[in-house]
Amino acid sequence: MSKGLIVQKFGGSSVADVKRIQNVAQRVISYRKKGYDLVVVVSALGDTTDELISLANKINPHPSEREMDMLLSTGEQISVALLAMAIHKLGYKAISFTGAQVGIITDTSHTRARIIKINTDKIKEELKKGKIVIVAGFQGITLNQDITTLGRGGSDLTAVALAKELDAQICQIYTDVEGIYTTDPRIEPKARKLKSITYDEMLEMASLGAQVMQARSIEVAKKFDVNIEVRSSFSQKRGTMITKEAKIMEEVVVRGVTLSKNEAKITICDVPDRPGIAAKIFKELSGGGINVDMIVQNVSHTRKTDISFTVNKNDVDKTMPIVRQTSKMIGAGEVLEDSDIARVSIVGVGMKSHPGVAAKMFEALAKEKINIEMISTSDISISCIIKKKFAETAVRAIHEKFGLGK
Amino acid sequence: MSKGLIVQKFGGSSVADVKRIQNVAQRVISYRKKGYDLVVVVSALGDTTDELISLANKINPHPSEREMDMLLSTGEQISVALLAMAIHKLGYKAISFTGAQVGIITDTSHTRARIIKINTDKIKEELKKGKIVIVAGFQGITLNQDITTLGRGGSDLTAVALAKELDAQICQIYTDVEGIYTTDPRIEPKARKLKSITYDEMLEMASLGAQVMQARSIEVAKKFDVNIEVRSSFSQKRGTMITKEAKIMEEVVVRGVTLSKNEAKITICDVPDRPGIAAKIFKELSGGGINVDMIVQNVSHTRKTDISFTVNKNDVDKTMPIVRQTSKMIGAGEVLEDSDIARVSIVGVGMKSHPGVAAKMFEALAKEKINIEMISTSDISISCIIKKKFAETAVRAIHEKFGLGK
Repeated sequence: MSKGLIVQKFGGSSVADVKRIQNVAQRVISYRKKGYDLVVVVSALGDTTDELISLANKINPHPSEREMDMLLSTGEQISVALLAMAIHKLGYKAISFTGAQVGIITDTSHTRARIIKINTDKIKEELKKGKIVIVAGFQGITLNQDITTLGRGGSDLTAVALAKELDAQICQIYTDVEGIYTTDPRIEPKARKLKSITYDEMLEMASLGAQVMQARSIEVAKKFDVNIEVRSSFSQKRGTMITKEAKIMEEVVVRGVTLSKNEAKITICDVPDRPGIAAKIFKELSGGGINVDMIVQNVSHTRKTDISFTVNKNDVDKTMPIVRQTSKMIGAGEVLEDSDIARVSIVGVGMKSHPGVAAKMFEALAKEKINIEMISTSDISISCIIKKKFAETAVRAIHEKFGLGK
Repeated sequence: MSKGLIVQKFGGSSVADVKRIQNVAQRVISYRKKGYDLVVVVSALGDTTDELISLANKINPHPSEREMDMLLSTGEQISVALLAMAIHKLGYKAISFTGAQVGIITDTSHTRARIIKINTDKIKEELKKGKIVIVAGFQGITLNQDITTLGRGGSDLTAVALAKELDAQICQIYTDVEGIYTTDPRIEPKARKLKSITYDEMLEMASLGAQVMQARSIEVAKKFDVNIEVRSSFSQKRGTMITKEAKIMEEVVVRGVTLSKNEAKITICDVPDRPGIAAKIFKELSGGGINVDMIVQNVSHTRKTDISFTVNKNDVDKTMPIVRQTSKMIGAGEVLEDSDIARVSIVGVGMKSHPGVAAKMFEALAKEKINIEMISTSDISISCIIKKKFAETAVRAIHEKFGLGK
């Protein structure tokens, strides 16, 4: 009798070469031996996706998104076939499927498609035959039979969606780190692995720079209450559980510290302080397809004010001309750009009910004589923009201040 | 108005790198500009297929054929996407399809599947929209949605089958040589490109060592009377037409000289000259999955005789134990193996009605003092097995003797 179903997802670094693929095969089989049914989702080998993108760009700097999906989906197809062969070699039954074969139906938004529905009949049929079912991550197919991909990190989404549809006990996300840490261990060696974290905290950490899991897949997991474990494919240690309510949550105020260096700060000086001006600026930017993140407007004592906001560094070149034109239009002044910044954030659902968390964070920075250029808060996070050179010092100071290493 | 439909097939060497893919795009578009509708079949880039096979063998020396097809079919999928991007870049409409998407339905014989039917609706629909339709060669899908491949050179078959189903005016096979030659120009610089050749001659040449086109696809072309042109993707010159009846066929006795070094000769000595003995030997071999080619048995004056036959070199290790055992069983003697041989053949439908062709060939060899070890003839070909070191000399001598360079 089956002990139940587990969905396992292995990222590109977990299947980067022959030895690692064999390692994954052994891992999968170890769960089979324990009596579990298994659906395994795999990403493309190592840097395959990046290599294919670079090849495409050499041929056409603006490739058709449909053809891009046709191209990129081959990466995962290679992985699933090789993993099936590796499992066969060890004497176990396995069968691989593309997203199309398994019936992962998406909308037609190529390169960032959304899953509409999953037809799990084929998977269930093969599970019944005692096979380990291996599914290509990151991809689906439209009702018109066009191949689509789900965007960066889309294999996480494939795994979570399959776990939901198949009513799996758990969705294990295997990666090259051992779980979710209180902060990046490469910056702060005292960083501690968390036993559990809530969907909301994980979402916040993902959007604030922790790159362990794709944000959309966490949203889906939250929506359908799919239990996730993030763990390493190179170790046997337990990872971090992502669930609705983390245990002993009440006692924890701050769950972790994140750092992002991918943003640039744009400042529009001397903006006339009239109703509707801010709306005008950000409407122009959104019309230009630019995602604006933190926005800070100083309280105005004169008739003019400064408005600052952050955008992804890659969008600066698109952003500046739009902002300069808008500035002229609304009678504002100079537009300044600063890419030499970092965002340090703390995340924790407990901070809602604990006053003084922000003050404690600012104290930690003040003690290191780090100037705060912008501040932004949400229900469960506080972010500070500081000079980039202070980034690591700031992370360590805050990590220490909240006692996260203990 | 469309001038009609052309199916073009480009092999792996024609799309080996970015520059060559762009070159193919230009070639395709040049026909579009002339007013033709185009269906383009592409193989995997350069050595991709071999690289994938080697990767698979590292993981599992005996990979499942279903998974092998899953793996290998990615090669052509990459090619079609990249070619579509290259055509888009030049401002023309194009769309790529996998074998599955285009409805190339095959049987379930993985790695050597046979096409059952092709659903051309999708292709016709896209052609109507003015698009160049690009189809992944070498692959299909079973009715159960498993991906299959058509065996080595299978892209030729895809192209010929599509040309038949779509009633194309011509099927152009683009390769790295300019057409079919009277013999291999690397051996005999005087070799001459043929303007035309019959299906039967081409079939014979393919099976005797000319590696320009897959034999099965020529059979299909013959069966359905699909006109083929073999030509180079690196030159603008006209290639060789393969048709039912080559022009001025009557005047030509010998069409070409082929050379194969892929065979080994096996000799069973002192075989009792009794009815049924030869049958026994070759039944054992066919049971062992070994394809036997030329068979020669000397006329027996005593009660014992020698039987020689050739097999593919790669099959020698499998063949020898079977033959040794059979030899013992039937009371024959020693079994000899000789891989140091070559097969030189002449091909031509005209030789049926021209006596003396064989004698002329043997004279050419005799003049060079080349000993003939085995002889085999068919309706339209004569083959001689000789020592490998004389192979090139033999080809040149025969080519000269029949005046093929003129």
